[in-house]
Amino acid sequence: MNAEIIAVGSELLTPFRMDTNSLYLTEQLNQLGVEVVFKSVVGDDLRNLVAAAQHALFRSEVVIFSGGLGPTEDDLTREAVAEALGVSLRRDAEMLTHIEQRFAARGWKMSPNNAKQADVLEGATALANANGTAPGQWISGKFDGRERILILLPGPPHELKALFEAECRERLRAKLPPAFIATRVLKVAMLGESHVDARVAPIYKSFADVQTTILAGAGEIQLHFKSRAQTGEAAQARVDAAADAVEEELDDAVFSRNGESLEQILGYWLQMRNTTVAVAESCTGGLLGERITSVSGSSRYFKGGAIVYSNELKTELAGVPADMIERHGAVSREVAAALAEGIRYRCEATLGVGVTGVAGPTGGTPEKPVGLVFHALASDSGTEVIERKFPGDRKRIRLFASTMAMDMVRKKLM
Amino acid sequence: MNAEIIAVGSELLTPFRMDTNSLYLTEQLNQLGVEVVFKSVVGDDLRNLVAAAQHALFRSEVVIFSGGLGPTEDDLTREAVAEALGVSLRRDAEMLTHIEQRFAARGWKMSPNNAKQADVLEGATALANANGTAPGQWISGKFDGRERILILLPGPPHELKALFEAECRERLRAKLPPAFIATRVLKVAMLGESHVDARVAPIYKSFADVQTTILAGAGEIQLHFKSRAQTGEAAQARVDAAADAVEEELDDAVFSRNGESLEQILGYWLQMRNTTVAVAESCTGGLLGERITSVSGSSRYFKGGAIVYSNELKTELAGVPADMIERHGAVSREVAAALAEGIRYRCEATLGVGVTGVAGPTGGTPEKPVGLVFHALASDSGTEVIERKFPGDRKRIRLFASTMAMDMVRKKLM
Repeated sequence: MNAEIIAVGSELLTPFRMDTNSLYLTEQLNQLGVEVVFKSVVGDDLRNLVAAAQHALFRSEVVIFSGGLGPTEDDLTREAVAEALGVSLRRDAEMLTHIEQRFAARGWKMSPNNAKQADVLEGATALANANGTAPGQWISGKFDGRERILILLPGPPHELKALFEAECRERLRAKLPPAFIATRVLKVAMLGESHVDARVAPIYKSFADVQTTILAGAGEIQLHFKSRAQTGEAAQARVDAAADAVEEELDDAVFSRNGESLEQILGYWLQMRNTTVAVAESCTGGLLGERITSVSGSSRYFKGGAIVYSNELKTELAGVPADMIERHGAVSREVAAALAEGIRYRCEATLGVGVTGVAGPTGGTPEKPVGLVFHALASDSGTEVIERKFPGDRKRIRLFASTMAMDMVRKKLM
Repeated sequence: MNAEIIAVGSELLTPFRMDTNSLYLTEQLNQLGVEVVFKSVVGDDLRNLVAAAQHALFRSEVVIFSGGLGPTEDDLTREAVAEALGVSLRRDAEMLTHIEQRFAARGWKMSPNNAKQADVLEGATALANANGTAPGQWISGKFDGRERILILLPGPPHELKALFEAECRERLRAKLPPAFIATRVLKVAMLGESHVDARVAPIYKSFADVQTTILAGAGEIQLHFKSRAQTGEAAQARVDAAADAVEEELDDAVFSRNGESLEQILGYWLQMRNTTVAVAESCTGGLLGERITSVSGSSRYFKGGAIVYSNELKTELAGVPADMIERHGAVSREVAAALAEGIRYRCEATLGVGVTGVAGPTGGTPEKPVGLVFHALASDSGTEVIERKFPGDRKRIRLFASTMAMDMVRKKLM
């Protein structure tokens, strides 16, 4: 079955805003075995909306609108779809009460323009919105002789998601032939995309009934596996077979076997090993600490650390000897090691991490070019330093460096 | 004049990828006075692409395709547009040579499938691509009696941008009535969107020839002003009048008068005042340092600081008395102030910033709920503390807290 998603709103046709609801909806539809074949964005214009609805109903079996269900004159999705279907709108008493109650609960009186949010397409089911005033709508049946499902959802992402989950997913599943789709995501750190693909393409291509997608970010490659079968177990067995074969090839470069983030996996290993970590960051400026603490509960294994942007602070907060900085330069193997060792001692952590480098775009020299970063990991078994020259701009270099540092800790613990 | 943008590629119909080229193209078109009225995404399917091209040519004066110009069987934009226009494709000898030369320059032999990238629509101008093999195409004229401009651009963003700038912008400008568009962006920190809009809507609405858009993020509101006139000066004068009137109302809440980021503005003021800053971060975990150091050259005014996730480190690195933490709790007005003062002293900075709070989702109590954050700024004139209760999830609370802290420093200096 094929679906089409139409995002409504003139703000989505500016340079500043994007429709992100369609990513969520695509994931949900794919899991039900429905493919998305068109996505579009239409402004708050009745004529354009009617045309878009007509085209969509002509060519796609499932049509989902997001947005344009609010109370203002610009909110025209209801009217446009009614015109495209050739049906009228009826004011739904139950939904009107729901909207009035939402206002009353906040001690406000509902202004009259809000009543139009209770207008429902003739033949449609109104879907109560637990997080906002505008209800969703579901209508299915034959239009111009074609069997169609049409869903209207509110634009705010948290309303759309809750409403889809509560009211649409099972309704859709009931309309579809039983299909079980299983997915797996492997994540790999600090290898290049072409290198990874060259190694694993022969493997995943041998699994004909598994669809594999490779996505690359700064320092991270994701391998998405998807398969459809008659039973959930069969679908899962297929993706597991492909993912396991790929994982065997990539070995310990795979940090995540089920889509977890590197930050989560790092926390998992630190807790597993009953270990704590502290960081001394120069070029990353706090990014490494920020990423580690993005995980709730990270205070159990993250002690803290120092942002040592100036040479004096490398000495003052992380105990790096001033003459070492003088002799080797702040961006050096020696200073990285001293940062890791010093912050480990200072913070009484099991592991200490030091990062120093040239994030650019200025500050590079022939010997120490932009992108050069030293990453050090100190433990009771000694200190390891990895030197890398990263490509890209300041943001990308800092992202690479923080990923490299976290991955060193992960490999130490696993 | 109205435009429509069609992004081509099945990968853009997965949950993992978005079309971002259309944001760039929209900005460029708007600056030429062209409004974007539809955006769509179509997969690598000939029938769907032909239908999309036909609809677009019927309803929009400028139609831009991005993607689907590569060498593989999946790259079908050329063929689809040819079919929609009812014209044939000719192999362009000059473009073929260009493609062969790109391969030769890398010491590779061109494989035969690459030749199809030199196929150009009958009547179109091929636009040489300096950053890739696939040329762009430009065709204008009457289709079904309607005057239309059709542009094909390669999908990779850096190729698309370079090609649009080098080959399309002036060609489009020559087709348009002379229009000069000026824009201004004001940014406001730490005020609510509805509060800002209530104060400034009566003002910007009085400038009938200026289009104003309000965008809200965590702790930041952007006001975009746009105006079109017969001369650049007239357009600029209009947006300046509206922006200045709005700025007068919002006063020092406006941190940016021309679109600069808070991080850039903070760096500007710190350098203007010949001042340095150091940070002691608890709940933000490094985010504040990371944001300040996201600006190249920030080592001139940012000394560094401490990430003090544990109570011991608040004492060890920032000199907060242990009994103060015991007495008031780590999340308290007193500890925030002591963090700011301690780190200022320790780092020998002009200004010290301390942040402590409950980022959640766990760790909240009735007295100290999730979202409660204390922000302190210490200077030689004393220490100021601001207490806030932020809404949202962990990420949003940390973003709010870091913005609040930076904005305190800005206000202190301006």
